[in-house]
Parts: sequence; structure tokens; C-alpha cells
Amino acid sequence: MLEQFRVNLDDAVFVKGEDLKATVAGVFEKMGVPPADALLGADVLVLADLRGVDSHGVSNMLKSYITGYQNGQINPRPNWKIIRETPSTANIDSDRGLGIIITPKAMDIAIQKAKNVGVGMVTIGNARHLGMASYHAMMAVEHDMIGVCMTSCPPSVVPTFGAEARLGTNPIAVAAPAKNEPPFVFDAATSSVAGNKVGIARRLGVKMEPGWLADEDGNPIMDEADPPEKYTLLPLGSTRELGSHKGYGLSCMVDILAGVLTGVGYGAVPGRPNFGHYVAAYSIDAFTDPDEFKEMMDEWMGMMKSTKPAPGHDRVMVAGQPEAEIEEIRREDGIPLHEEVAQWIRDTCAELSVPCHF
Amino acid sequence: MLEQFRVNLDDAVFVKGEDLKATVAGVFEKMGVPPADALLGADVLVLADLRGVDSHGVSNMLKSYITGYQNGQINPRPNWKIIRETPSTANIDSDRGLGIIITPKAMDIAIQKAKNVGVGMVTIGNARHLGMASYHAMMAVEHDMIGVCMTSCPPSVVPTFGAEARLGTNPIAVAAPAKNEPPFVFDAATSSVAGNKVGIARRLGVKMEPGWLADEDGNPIMDEADPPEKYTLLPLGSTRELGSHKGYGLSCMVDILAGVLTGVGYGAVPGRPNFGHYVAAYSIDAFTDPDEFKEMMDEWMGMMKSTKPAPGHDRVMVAGQPEAEIEEIRREDGIPLHEEVAQWIRDTCAELSVPCHF
Repeated sequence: MLEQFRVNLDDAVFVKGEDLKATVAGVFEKMGVPPADALLGADVLVLADLRGVDSHGVSNMLKSYITGYQNGQINPRPNWKIIRETPSTANIDSDRGLGIIITPKAMDIAIQKAKNVGVGMVTIGNARHLGMASYHAMMAVEHDMIGVCMTSCPPSVVPTFGAEARLGTNPIAVAAPAKNEPPFVFDAATSSVAGNKVGIARRLGVKMEPGWLADEDGNPIMDEADPPEKYTLLPLGSTRELGSHKGYGLSCMVDILAGVLTGVGYGAVPGRPNFGHYVAAYSIDAFTDPDEFKEMMDEWMGMMKSTKPAPGHDRVMVAGQPEAEIEEIRREDGIPLHEEVAQWIRDTCAELSVPCHF
Repeated sequence: MLEQFRVNLDDAVFVKGEDLKATVAGVFEKMGVPPADALLGADVLVLADLRGVDSHGVSNMLKSYITGYQNGQINPRPNWKIIRETPSTANIDSDRGLGIIITPKAMDIAIQKAKNVGVGMVTIGNARHLGMASYHAMMAVEHDMIGVCMTSCPPSVVPTFGAEARLGTNPIAVAAPAKNEPPFVFDAATSSVAGNKVGIARRLGVKMEPGWLADEDGNPIMDEADPPEKYTLLPLGSTRELGSHKGYGLSCMVDILAGVLTGVGYGAVPGRPNFGHYVAAYSIDAFTDPDEFKEMMDEWMGMMKSTKPAPGHDRVMVAGQPEAEIEEIRREDGIPLHEEVAQWIRDTCAELSVPCHF
């Protein structure tokens, strides 16, 4: 995340991860979610906060989940089931269950299949938001597996040369273990910028970088500017010349694997549930010796991190490294919440008669 | 491909695909490649030409393959073998075989495994160049499967904030069938631009677009400019602000799956064979009904193609559509080769005492 989007630590309330998790689990239970599921969902949200992925943590997501439960869009006790299955695959009907709770269960199935036959791959249709995609991908790492997670979301991104949003931010997450280094964890939207950065920028009065948005007519905005009233997001690559057809194509791949392949639909289908998910686990042992793999990952990361930096930069990082560094700090110091966010959580707990643990 | 990189049709020699294929197969045989392998390799090269992917066709690749065979870098009769295997996976030691010949065989194995257990995934170490990655991904389509292909190549791309090349152009290809529409075929380097465009631009005197290259010190070149003498490629996204950490992270994913996971190494390891490949096939039937999937793909593509275009553009396309349109023309009219390329092929055939079929 760019620096201007970070919480200002001077105004922050620091909350221990465990306290935030217990609080959020209480809120989920109040929504009708069974206790074990409530704890699991809270774990997904709070790990995002611990790793500095504030965009997918409690402050940005909990409100919309509460709204979804309250208006019936999200089913607190889904009767999710496997509707098709092979030794290495499954397709799940999630019965409108919240993705942050169903997706880890799907990943458990994928991991078990990868143990049995080398690879496990599970799609989830009729689904709802899955939070930080890398949570699910990272589950594979502790089993000496490579984890993958993608999600096809409601449209906010234009195709290259297009003037109408047809694709979600459709993120891709991949996690792979190392030996002494923190795991490789990649997790990014296939759009040029995450959707909620625009709202945050508007709130903070920060200008948009060039290449993030298209204007109302579909023209890429290539100057630093205030966000216009009506806009769409650009695919990664921003313009055809810079390679936006690649971001667009990757987003299409996500729409196919996490959307069309579920049999239920993809982000842009009107009138259909518009989240679909995809998780996969690849057993490293099915390809090569896991210890040697992890040693080579350390070597590979060391090479990447020792790259001579370009002028104006002090170091080169690898995906997962900044998040691991932030997690170490936040597990010690607590999660910094905007005072207004902390107060909103306290107020929400009071309103719902749920204990707030901070 | 941008228009300025296309062959000028006025100066072109048009060669039928079958004639070019027979000619190239003859050259491969002369290099010591067994006849069936020679035909397979020629098919991979010529399909790139037929689909307008000239960067990976005969004119751009054959010379380097001949050189590789002649200097012993490529083994014409590799004793390739599976060194580890599970029901859904295999890892192949390619014994320095040319990727355009070994990779289709690996994909055959992946497809068979996907028939058996739902997913097949095969890595290839100790490998050489695999040509157009989408050739291999597309093999899955005729089996009602989704195909994936990635390759970890020698370094030419800087990590975000880096001043030294650490990653190859590390392409990702994905293919998925539709019903009446041509298949979805995505195939793109994870760098901002394909490496050989720079050489072609220099030859044609065309300026580089902003965001394609970093200068000698690692600074992204963000103006339209002549290519400098020394440069590296930028990851997709070009700069941190535009999202280059995403292109960089995707390239890392390719290095891990197609490189580290082979157990042999990745693009940037000095002194090790520096191509590694990854192919996968996902049986659609393992997730959902294939006919319904293909119908939904048609619907999805129709939605994408009917997107209102942005000003200055006449239509929105889907990955695989421009290549399918070019293939239809070139199967009819022949493949346009630069006169000098056609002459080089004729001269090479004469030198090697191989028949030239055009």
C-alpha cells in the first residue's frame, strides 16, 4: 500500500489482535453465525489487519458483512455442499455463505486432495466476499504446499478500449513456503489499483496517481488528478501501450476459473450471485523434495532482495516480505485503528449487545 | 502486437503454413531431431506465425534454435524422463531437449492425468525455449479442458525498485474453450513489453513507448524515447505507482512454479540451465457440465465484446480473438514473411542441403 493510505499512527488506537478477533467473532455470532465459523471469519479479517492489509481488515469490511447478514444477502448458516467431485477437484455450492468462512473450508478440501493425489483444486459458486485472498493461499504453506486463490467479483474495471465496467478487481493470490525466509505471498487485484483506494483518497483529499482510473467516457486518466465523480478502474497496465491488455487478460482468466467454472456465473452477470471463488493447493512433494525446494526458495529470495536498488530507493523487496515485517510489529504493538473506526466498533458492539474487548 | 511491429504486407513473401512447416521440419531433422519430433517442433513454430504471434514464429526463433543445436546447448535426441510422479502431477528432466518439442509431450501427460483424476500438472526442468506458450495451453481446449503454460526464462527484467535484471519475461498462457466463439487464449509476458520488441523497434527506427524500459541505473523511462544502448525491461505496471509490484509478483510466481518447483533452478541462477516450464490441464467436467461451461463462455465473451468502446476505439476484443481472426486470414492467404527473412530461410536450407518448400 502506498504510504499516504496508511493509518496515521499518532491518531491511532492500538488493539491486540486477539482482542479484535474476540470482538469480531462476537459480532458474527450475533448475526447468527455458529461459534466456530464466527471465530474462523474473525481470524481471516484480523490477519489482514495484522499483516497491514487494512483494505481487507476489520475497519474496511466488517460493516458490509453486518449489512449483508442483516439484509439477507449473506446466509449465516449456509447448507454448503460439494456438487461435483473428482480425486483432485471439487465444486461447491456455498448457499450464500460468507467467503471468509467457506473459502478456508474449501482450501482444507483442496489440501486433503493434494495430499492424496498431488493437486487439489476447488471452485465455489453462489458465494460472497472472501476477504484477503492470500489468507486462503497461505493455508497451504504450512503443509509444504503452494497455495493459490482467486475471486471473480462484481464489475468495476473496464476492458482495454472499453467504456463500461465488465470485470471485478479479480485478485490473484499465491503463497509458497521458504526455509528461513518468510513465505512468498503475492496478493493483488488485476486492476491498476484496489477499488477502495479511490474512496480513501477522496476522504483524505489525496490526488489519484496517473493510470488508475478511466473517466466517465472510458478515457484513461493519465495525469495526477482528483478522482472524478463518475469513474471506472483501469486494468493493470493502465493503457494498451503500457500493457493493459495483460491486466485485462489476467482478470478474464480469474473470471473464467473463479466464475464460469463454478457453473453459477461470473462477476458481471446481472441477477446472479456475483462472487465466485477458486482455491488450489499443489503438494511440493509431488514434484520435488520439499526441503530442497525451501532451501532454493531462500536462495531465490536472497538473490531478489540483494538486487542493487535504483536511485531513490533503499531496497528491493519480495512479495510477502513487507507484510511479514508489519505482522511482526503489529503482533507486538497491536493493530492501529483510526480513532473513529475504533469508536464505530465500540458503538456497533453496544448496539448489538456484544462485548467489545478493547 | 502494436501495429508498427507488423510485417509490411507490400514487401512480404506469402508462404503457405504447410510449406513453411515442411521446410522447418526438414531443418530440424538435419539437426539430428527424429522425424516425428521435427514435425512437432515445426508445428509449434508455424502456428505462432499463423496466429500473428510473429515474435515466436519461424522468423524470430529458428535461427537461435539452429545455433543451439549446432553448439550443443540443445540436445536433438534427449533422453527425457519423468523423475517424480503422482496421479495428478509429474516432474520431467528434459535432458536439454528443446521446449517446443518436450512441452507438448508434457501437456499430453497433463491431459491424461486430468482425464484420470480431474487435474494434471507437469513441470519440466533442464529445459530449453518453448516457443509460443499458448500452443501448449491450447492443446487442452480440444479435450474440453482449461490449459495453462508458464515458463521461467533468463533474466532481462528488473524487480520493482531494482537496477539489475533478476527475472525473465516469464510469460503466462491460459486457454479455455467456448462453444461458437473462438477459444479464450491469453498469452503474455509479465514484463511491460516483450523483449524482442526493443530490437525490432531499434531496427525499424520506432521510438519506445513510455514505461517499457529502465535505463542503465534502473530508472523507469517514462517518456517516448529511442531505446538506450544499455537497458532492462520493466515489469508489467512499469512503476510502483502504476502497479509494477503486481507484474513483478506475477513474474515471481512463474519463477517459482516453472523454475524452483522443477528442482533444477530458475531463470537467474548462473551456471544452471535457465529455462523451466510448467503446464497444467483442468478437466471442465471435473467441476461442471462442459456444454454448459462452453455456452456460458460464449455469453461471457459476447458481453465483453459488446462493451461500449472508449473514444477513439472501434471495438473491445477478448484475448484469443485477434489471433483467431489473423489465423483465418493467414490459413487462406499464407504467412507474410519479410523478403529478407524468406531469403534467409532459403539460404539456410541451401547451406544445410535441406529442401525449401517455397
